[in-house]
Amino acid sequence: MTSRDISRPVCMLGLGLIGGSLLRDLSAHGHPAFGYNRSPSGTKSARTEGFDVSSDLTETLQRAEQEKALLVIATPMPAVGAMLAAITEHAPSCGITDVVSVKTEVYELVKQAGLEDRYVGSHPMSGTAESGWKASRTGLFKRAAWVVTFDHANDAPNGPGNDWIALWTDVVRMAKITGAEVIPARVDVHDAAVARVSHLPHLLAEALAIVGDNGGALSLSLAAGSFRDSTRVAASSPSLVRAMCETNSEALLVALDETIALLTDARAHLTETPPNIEELADNGYRSRIRYEARSGQGRQGDSVSPSPISGRPVLRLNPGGPDWVRMLEQAESLGARIEVF
Amino acid sequence: MTSRDISRPVCMLGLGLIGGSLLRDLSAHGHPAFGYNRSPSGTKSARTEGFDVSSDLTETLQRAEQEKALLVIATPMPAVGAMLAAITEHAPSCGITDVVSVKTEVYELVKQAGLEDRYVGSHPMSGTAESGWKASRTGLFKRAAWVVTFDHANDAPNGPGNDWIALWTDVVRMAKITGAEVIPARVDVHDAAVARVSHLPHLLAEALAIVGDNGGALSLSLAAGSFRDSTRVAASSPSLVRAMCETNSEALLVALDETIALLTDARAHLTETPPNIEELADNGYRSRIRYEARSGQGRQGDSVSPSPISGRPVLRLNPGGPDWVRMLEQAESLGARIEVF
Repeated sequence: MTSRDISRPVCMLGLGLIGGSLLRDLSAHGHPAFGYNRSPSGTKSARTEGFDVSSDLTETLQRAEQEKALLVIATPMPAVGAMLAAITEHAPSCGITDVVSVKTEVYELVKQAGLEDRYVGSHPMSGTAESGWKASRTGLFKRAAWVVTFDHANDAPNGPGNDWIALWTDVVRMAKITGAEVIPARVDVHDAAVARVSHLPHLLAEALAIVGDNGGALSLSLAAGSFRDSTRVAASSPSLVRAMCETNSEALLVALDETIALLTDARAHLTETPPNIEELADNGYRSRIRYEARSGQGRQGDSVSPSPISGRPVLRLNPGGPDWVRMLEQAESLGARIEVF
Repeated sequence: MTSRDISRPVCMLGLGLIGGSLLRDLSAHGHPAFGYNRSPSGTKSARTEGFDVSSDLTETLQRAEQEKALLVIATPMPAVGAMLAAITEHAPSCGITDVVSVKTEVYELVKQAGLEDRYVGSHPMSGTAESGWKASRTGLFKRAAWVVTFDHANDAPNGPGNDWIALWTDVVRMAKITGAEVIPARVDVHDAAVARVSHLPHLLAEALAIVGDNGGALSLSLAAGSFRDSTRVAASSPSLVRAMCETNSEALLVALDETIALLTDARAHLTETPPNIEELADNGYRSRIRYEARSGQGRQGDSVSPSPISGRPVLRLNPGGPDWVRMLEQAESLGARIEVF
């Protein structure tokens, strides 16, 4: 273990697509990691592949407490509350992070349980169209955005303690091991952003899939690349889509209202004589080009692989050092990735 | 030339992405083809590559008339009216097709010019994100859907004449040369279908690109595969998007209203306690799975290439033979591809 590695073992609580892939990456890196999975079949598959996993939650948490492991909650949102209760009971001193796709609701539960000073939220931005241990793989997070939250740095009455800063640093380093790019954001700012670029696309994909299907066999037969790509994420498990969208409803409503307003305007312009959707077409084009320029993706971005070169600015900071929280806020507003030293 | 080849040379009127790619495919097949392009620079590029093209419309049409060529109107929609007038003047006996992405408005112009018995509409469903001769290539239409219209078979007071049936057959055979799958549809049925699966996806992509961009740098930084794929076609030229959507406004309004209704319902369900978007998530998922099953695409369909195996049913028919129009209508309702013999 070098000084750039995380300082404690990692205990994965949940071995689905995200938790399973993270366990694989940590193990491939040689970092001590073990895990719990509710489903015995997933546990058995993982164990057959040589991973150190169990279906006994209490036993897993007791072991984590003994080894002072970093707990990673990788369950669906509805299971987070019960998991925090189990952690409070069986692993009362471990640091905690999670990889759930919404952050405000998780943080509310963390605060209700009085665990703020042991918690740092995180969210790796990766696909959801397949799920379960069987879908997990090494390298899933390579060059993906991985948000790490820092609300406690501002909220703690006397500033965050050294233990919390060390925990925060370990969460960042864990994400780094996977090859992800770490982007700091506070929970509400994160949720507002992902409502726009992750949850809203799911709602639009569902609606488009239905309207295309309403056109019957000829419509589906004529559907080409635009329909295929724009409805792709409608193939995600409905329960995952619901978990994401319903637990982030407040932020999603803002994004959805903007969308409905744009489409209602376009509707009005389509009924003019002659029809004129110049505003939507021009603004949409400019927005997409801005995104392409920023992401380093675009025409070559038709591949499912992330861009080989990051388009994100980078900020280097020293956790707990002078001005580090101001730098985190700056990185948040720039969508910048960070390096810690 | 075999009996399965088309019986006349082809004259391309417009050498953009579609017209240029069609000229390339016909030439590669060894079929006599020549063309006109308004822009001298595109003409020069095509000529440098050895294609028989000109920037003189009158001369090109006069030659087409002499050679009894099949005229293919491959201009943007706004230029179709003037092109039909030039054809009436300089190529008064040639058969005519077009590759414009809306069919009702073109057919209105054709009827205004009294050219119904010399016209068969067509529409190859292929990408629009790039344009111009420079974007054209052989193989663009391979396994793509290529709609061929047949309204005149029903509308002609005494039935369609043999010349029209021969023209219809040649248009189908021309499409076949490119490797496309020919799907018959009447102009209004075509327009209703493409409004759902081609024009609506463009509107939604524009709106999503704008709402994502409204979230600023962090949103764009966190945007992953769902946002990238769902906004891809917002990179299409705004003028092409406008031409498609504005000239198909009536059918597009139907699809757009269905979409706005679905999103407005979802909005209401998101404000419930607890939020519940089960209906949208379940129906959208089922619709996408139905599309995947039908198209033979899906999880493997993340590639930009069409599916290697057609998922479309096939009907074989003899143009002008007994019941052939009934069979065309059947194929239309099934979204089936046809083979002619």
